[in-house]
Amino acid sequence: MSKKILIPISNGFEEIEAISVIDICRRAGIEVTIAAVEDILTIGAHNVKITADTMITDVKSSDFDMIVLPGGLPNAFTLADNETVQKLLKEFKSQNKEIGAICAAPFALHKAEVLNENYTCYPSFEKKIKDSGYQNDKDFIIDGKVITSRGPGTASVFGLEIVRILCGDEVSNNVKSGMLL
Amino acid sequence: MSKKILIPISNGFEEIEAISVIDICRRAGIEVTIAAVEDILTIGAHNVKITADTMITDVKSSDFDMIVLPGGLPNAFTLADNETVQKLLKEFKSQNKEIGAICAAPFALHKAEVLNENYTCYPSFEKKIKDSGYQNDKDFIIDGKVITSRGPGTASVFGLEIVRILCGDEVSNNVKSGMLL
Repeated sequence: MSKKILIPISNGFEEIEAISVIDICRRAGIEVTIAAVEDILTIGAHNVKITADTMITDVKSSDFDMIVLPGGLPNAFTLADNETVQKLLKEFKSQNKEIGAICAAPFALHKAEVLNENYTCYPSFEKKIKDSGYQNDKDFIIDGKVITSRGPGTASVFGLEIVRILCGDEVSNNVKSGMLL
Repeated sequence: MSKKILIPISNGFEEIEAISVIDICRRAGIEVTIAAVEDILTIGAHNVKITADTMITDVKSSDFDMIVLPGGLPNAFTLADNETVQKLLKEFKSQNKEIGAICAAPFALHKAEVLNENYTCYPSFEKKIKDSGYQNDKDFIIDGKVITSRGPGTASVFGLEIVRILCGDEVSNNVKSGMLL
């Protein structure tokens, strides 16, 4: 049975971060659901208009294997403030499922108290999160079931690592070579 | 005055290729117009639904400095078959303006007879274009005013090179470092 990922987005989401993960995971055969937190037509940080697959209020954590949060502002703050997203993050954690976030979005994991000790994020955002455990020398950090990454330039590597976690090395390597990465 | 790029898209466009160029060029302050060739709500190769900024029939080549075609199928074939896109490509060429294409989309440049001798594309697509001048050992190839690139894995480098061509090294390097690339 194919794996399932939930990707919440709100206005100001970073387009390369969101689309790289969505595109790469769908290439791997993962079922990706883009769930809008504000409006079904969501406008990215660089004014790209995306129509989500569903609203966040219409999804259940039990239907998914992983939740992944893209960065971008104010998206990352909206995901940190939104009760439904915060409740979902706590449910993924309590169900021992995978959780991912990139760029400014690890802040939303921190707010939900699901971030583990070691993590990364967009440089300077660690000041809003926590100094302890912050690492800035790798494209992504895995600590337990939580994977975090840095920004648009690390989004493809982050996406391929999510594929590796859910589907294994072979699938991830095949997607990578098909993309000419 | 800011530079202006026209990006035509049709159903089946490759999302990472289109969004990387749009996001990176907008980060550089370039005015990017996404123009739909079929429906204003255009569905990508991996089912991402994007609402374009305008329809291709409502734009004029004289308003832009460059045209860039994303790949993905059937998008690349649609761009090769569409009369308006083909006419625009010939106009950009005759006005000595920049032209770019990635992945399968150099095929649409070939159909419009605007491709120069040296080029690259997604491996195997050179069989539909021409063997002479095809190069597969670089992320992008510049020949005169025409820049071509290979696939999703080269899209960010392609976008940064477009910024370098239109706005110079400093702007391109600043965008690159801001993205953590």
